[in-house]
Amino acid sequence: MVDTLKQYIDSNQKMFQRLLSEYIQATDITESLRKSMLYSLEAGGKRLRPVLLLASFEAYSTETEKTYSSALALEMIHTYSLIHDDLPAMDDDDMRRGLPTNHKVFGEATAILAGDALLTYSFEIIANDPLLTDKEKLYCIKHLSKASGPSGMVGGQILDMEAEKQPVTLEKLEKIHSLKTGELLKFAVTAGAYLGKASEEQISYLRDYAHYLGLIFQVQDDILDVIGDQEKLGEAVGSDESNDKSTYPKLLGLDGAIEMKKLYTEKALTLLEKANAHTSKLLELTNYVSNRDH
Amino acid sequence: MVDTLKQYIDSNQKMFQRLLSEYIQATDITESLRKSMLYSLEAGGKRLRPVLLLASFEAYSTETEKTYSSALALEMIHTYSLIHDDLPAMDDDDMRRGLPTNHKVFGEATAILAGDALLTYSFEIIANDPLLTDKEKLYCIKHLSKASGPSGMVGGQILDMEAEKQPVTLEKLEKIHSLKTGELLKFAVTAGAYLGKASEEQISYLRDYAHYLGLIFQVQDDILDVIGDQEKLGEAVGSDESNDKSTYPKLLGLDGAIEMKKLYTEKALTLLEKANAHTSKLLELTNYVSNRDH
Repeated sequence: MVDTLKQYIDSNQKMFQRLLSEYIQATDITESLRKSMLYSLEAGGKRLRPVLLLASFEAYSTETEKTYSSALALEMIHTYSLIHDDLPAMDDDDMRRGLPTNHKVFGEATAILAGDALLTYSFEIIANDPLLTDKEKLYCIKHLSKASGPSGMVGGQILDMEAEKQPVTLEKLEKIHSLKTGELLKFAVTAGAYLGKASEEQISYLRDYAHYLGLIFQVQDDILDVIGDQEKLGEAVGSDESNDKSTYPKLLGLDGAIEMKKLYTEKALTLLEKANAHTSKLLELTNYVSNRDH
Repeated sequence: MVDTLKQYIDSNQKMFQRLLSEYIQATDITESLRKSMLYSLEAGGKRLRPVLLLASFEAYSTETEKTYSSALALEMIHTYSLIHDDLPAMDDDDMRRGLPTNHKVFGEATAILAGDALLTYSFEIIANDPLLTDKEKLYCIKHLSKASGPSGMVGGQILDMEAEKQPVTLEKLEKIHSLKTGELLKFAVTAGAYLGKASEEQISYLRDYAHYLGLIFQVQDDILDVIGDQEKLGEAVGSDESNDKSTYPKLLGLDGAIEMKKLYTEKALTLLEKANAHTSKLLELTNYVSNRDH
């Protein structure tokens, strides 16, 4: 990873971590619920989504405080989805990022409610951001709810569950991932650009760019599950195989998956250029997502 | 129940039922998820919340279409909370309104996701309502997210769970119910009045009115659990006792609970008068909530 990118990610990770804690501390919440929400928010994620939103904003503009509410809301929604995903009724995972999952620590009932609370609070944060115009708030709420709702992420979860019972085509696999992971990444990139006052044309290119970025993210996830370092991943390698999950390596072989990732990356970078964002941190972030080891 | 009130509730129940189905049909959702969402939305609730919102609006204004998006969003959030409440990790209920609960029909994973989807979709609906101004949309989103989130309904759920482990005071019981049930009723009444262009003073009286309405609702729930008709309730009578739940009759005795309900009702009606809404359907609805048999 390029040194400046590492610094960029590290310092913004820390900033978003601090802001997440502040936002949860600032509101009047029953202590046990607050602890459960904070536990998962502080469990050391990559903060890829808020950093992407910020980087996309910075491709066009400078007053970065305008990105905070939507970036934090996005990370809260991502976190809620992980908490619910890990539940016994869903993936039944005991560990996440090297720590016990939320329901292992707080019990299932509290974990379900902490997820519900994070999801709901994310919209409250945006609606109350004094730095955004009404139009900007509504843009973010409209697109974030769509990206994470029944025709976005939650819809992708259902498709993913259904796909576990039967083999799927590459087309279907792309559809699942574009809903389950891609829509939130798309929100990160397009909302950042919108708040940064990018043109409609630029936003449209970035939307397509983010589609490929999501696919790169997923194919690399699948590759890491085959060849990754368990220590760095913080979860068991080979879990996809044992879960009988549809993955790129299973459909295309490991070499085929790596080839596909290359193809996606080329497409993504071309679109980034068309959006006049190729000199921004987004270029480095794309390569980082493509080559990350955890 | 007064005949005209019965007609009012019946016809609006039907209208909201039709609108709920239309809104879920209109969007691009994976079929199994849609079925699960519709199942609980169509499971024949009283539609008390949307009807309240509408009645509150009609106390001040006439173009009722303006209430639809927030009324439907409110009912979706109420429905999601029931789906998650019924889960094995929470109340573990097999039946609701005389029908098997969502997870009994669709499985736990789909039930969790259907709840998540309804919650998320509710904000999307308001954000996309062409009949509301940006200011009106944001008012509704801001207050609905607060009412249903960590410092509202979800916070109340956590308090309620914690209260099951130990006896609580009347003050604590009121706090639990005002969060768990009251906040959404408060949203119904205040958002309706706001959209109907009530004055800030009127809205403020109605907010207090709705606080008591929520308590009336809850004390009557508790009373019905002791003396209600199982057939009409669609759920087992005496379940609070066997669940070891804190209730008004347990704290005050049955007579004390009935007395308390009378006191709450008097306060509610006084506030309704101050808000110039005492000639509206809200008056009859208050008596209906206080005397309902299911």
